[in-house]
Amino acid sequence: MTEEERRAWAYLSRVAEPPNPRVAALAATLGPVEAAERIRRRDLTDAPLLKGTAARHEIDCARDDLEVLDRLGGRLIVEGDGEWPYLAFRSFAGVEKFSKPQAYAPLALWVVGPSALSMVSERAAAIVGTRAATSYGEFATADLAAGLAERDVAIVSGGAYGIDGAAHRAALACDGVTVAVLACGIDVPYPSGHSALLHRVSRHGLIVSEYPPGMRPSRRQFLARNRLVAAVTGATVVVEAGVRSGAANTAAWARALGRNVCAVPGPITSASSVGCHALIRNEAHLVTRAEEILELVGRAGEIAEDPPRPRSELDDLSPDELAVYEALPGRGTRSIEDIAVVAGLPVADVLGPLTMLDIKGLVTQDNGDWKLLRPRVSTRR
Amino acid sequence: MTEEERRAWAYLSRVAEPPNPRVAALAATLGPVEAAERIRRRDLTDAPLLKGTAARHEIDCARDDLEVLDRLGGRLIVEGDGEWPYLAFRSFAGVEKFSKPQAYAPLALWVVGPSALSMVSERAAAIVGTRAATSYGEFATADLAAGLAERDVAIVSGGAYGIDGAAHRAALACDGVTVAVLACGIDVPYPSGHSALLHRVSRHGLIVSEYPPGMRPSRRQFLARNRLVAAVTGATVVVEAGVRSGAANTAAWARALGRNVCAVPGPITSASSVGCHALIRNEAHLVTRAEEILELVGRAGEIAEDPPRPRSELDDLSPDELAVYEALPGRGTRSIEDIAVVAGLPVADVLGPLTMLDIKGLVTQDNGDWKLLRPRVSTRR
Repeated sequence: MTEEERRAWAYLSRVAEPPNPRVAALAATLGPVEAAERIRRRDLTDAPLLKGTAARHEIDCARDDLEVLDRLGGRLIVEGDGEWPYLAFRSFAGVEKFSKPQAYAPLALWVVGPSALSMVSERAAAIVGTRAATSYGEFATADLAAGLAERDVAIVSGGAYGIDGAAHRAALACDGVTVAVLACGIDVPYPSGHSALLHRVSRHGLIVSEYPPGMRPSRRQFLARNRLVAAVTGATVVVEAGVRSGAANTAAWARALGRNVCAVPGPITSASSVGCHALIRNEAHLVTRAEEILELVGRAGEIAEDPPRPRSELDDLSPDELAVYEALPGRGTRSIEDIAVVAGLPVADVLGPLTMLDIKGLVTQDNGDWKLLRPRVSTRR
Repeated sequence: MTEEERRAWAYLSRVAEPPNPRVAALAATLGPVEAAERIRRRDLTDAPLLKGTAARHEIDCARDDLEVLDRLGGRLIVEGDGEWPYLAFRSFAGVEKFSKPQAYAPLALWVVGPSALSMVSERAAAIVGTRAATSYGEFATADLAAGLAERDVAIVSGGAYGIDGAAHRAALACDGVTVAVLACGIDVPYPSGHSALLHRVSRHGLIVSEYPPGMRPSRRQFLARNRLVAAVTGATVVVEAGVRSGAANTAAWARALGRNVCAVPGPITSASSVGCHALIRNEAHLVTRAEEILELVGRAGEIAEDPPRPRSELDDLSPDELAVYEALPGRGTRSIEDIAVVAGLPVADVLGPLTMLDIKGLVTQDNGDWKLLRPRVSTRR
């Protein structure tokens, strides 16, 4: 990319509210330099494009924006760059017609950090949720994020307070890769309490934004940002979300883009889990362990093993053996005839099971009668 | 029912381990008195029936059993009685062939209490779960059971410690109907710590058992009992269950019998919710409120209303109005030209939205410029 092209992309990134498919189409047809020039000179026949670029076409702070980017050690990436997550953004092609106004791939991305977005997005999960996280939600986030980071899954989130912050922190804590997709410029410390955290993310992972330096976040920018969080990951995991939550918006993008939607259950007494339970009712995967998420974002064959299941010695007994075992008294002995009555089996059918139980070390003979060899295993399940 | 028939049913109820479809078929063909007499005399051609009744055919404590029943003020009910839940048990007809050995309707039921089982089972939910309940599980149980009892839904459970006990207690506490289906005789105080609770259930609701008085519980009896809990209710709700749990067995019966299976989510950190999360993954309804269970067991039209959803004044703004609103500074004023640049709208398109926002009481004019009328509503969601 020449410096002239780079400056043109920076200009185009600000001249219309992203994503603007008409700006993107013009740049694809004419190249960025000619497209920027036409917009600047109002040399356009497309009325919506004229309207969309009317307010800002005279503003050109591309040089300043790129200076900020250079100072942060970042880069401006566009389609065609090796780092552009081409596959991730191709999913927008299917949803553009019938989905929301933001349903388009970005024009350009401002990124800072050592990771390459295209690589990261091949094995990544979004972990998102409410800013009003409970300590349970923060614990669950840390547990899942750490479990995924340890398995080389990048953790993508939005840099917000609450669940987002806990996800970034947990990934950083185990030297994993984490990506913060921002709804403001890469140089804007938002939220202010996370400026140190975002700095660490930019040093060890990636900060990504569709917005030029200096841009403050707004509601429509959050909604547009959420689509990128969903797009660059294989699954969106909502850990805690209230009745209304930006996380549900990210989950809706994930669903629209054909990504997996996961939600973590929580107490029914917690307002911060209401949104998660609604998602699970609406066919989100219920997830409780990092392995279950890995199944969705990992390579084929990375299947979660079932957690160990406690077993009882009685599991392998035949129905008659179990009936005979249970017919023996907790203390003392019982005759074969009495065992038969309690077990409801003919006397002739009691000796076989008794012998098998004897071999298994559960019962023993005592003066012709029978007794338990050890205290009874709990038979209730 | 004559006294002779009653004594015959009591004898048949003990002579084979219930449920025994061959005893039931014999009684249906010959009547209970003749069936009991043939079994007693070994006047049978059916080898499995001979075997199933071999150990106990000489034991006749029907008279004593009925004396116990009378002392408790109970009754022995069989198919044909008005109180027999015929519809509830008809579901077994579909599962007998391919399901478990216990997949049969009961032969007779020993019941104590003022409620009529057939009436109760028309509007009932089973609430079951682990004996190792957490305080969260007990709270959730009490909340759901009370909510259902207040809506005239009978609460059916197994009388055990933990979730079962909490369900019975909550129903009793709000004068609801509750039914304990036991895996032992109706006179056996099992578990011993629940003898007072079971007594209260027998006074205000119903104690039900397939087993004659004096029978101690055993593993196979618990498994057989669980099918009755599922059968006499429209939905089985598992509140807490570990990896292995009898509640999962009741849920499996509910599914096999075509009843609704519900589970309550809980923290992923709680071993007592692992079984519930597995059930939800396996297509159980995730339930968080009594109303959601009522939808499944109530009359058509008893639909759960959505919980109230917080709304923001910004919800009804058009995209341009929102962009203009967000383009105003938190403090101070801004000119129409500057608003246009920040919002990314042509100057000509800014005045309309400003006027609408003025009418809605969100912004006001100030010396030709514009400002927010009140502190900004949070625009993040």
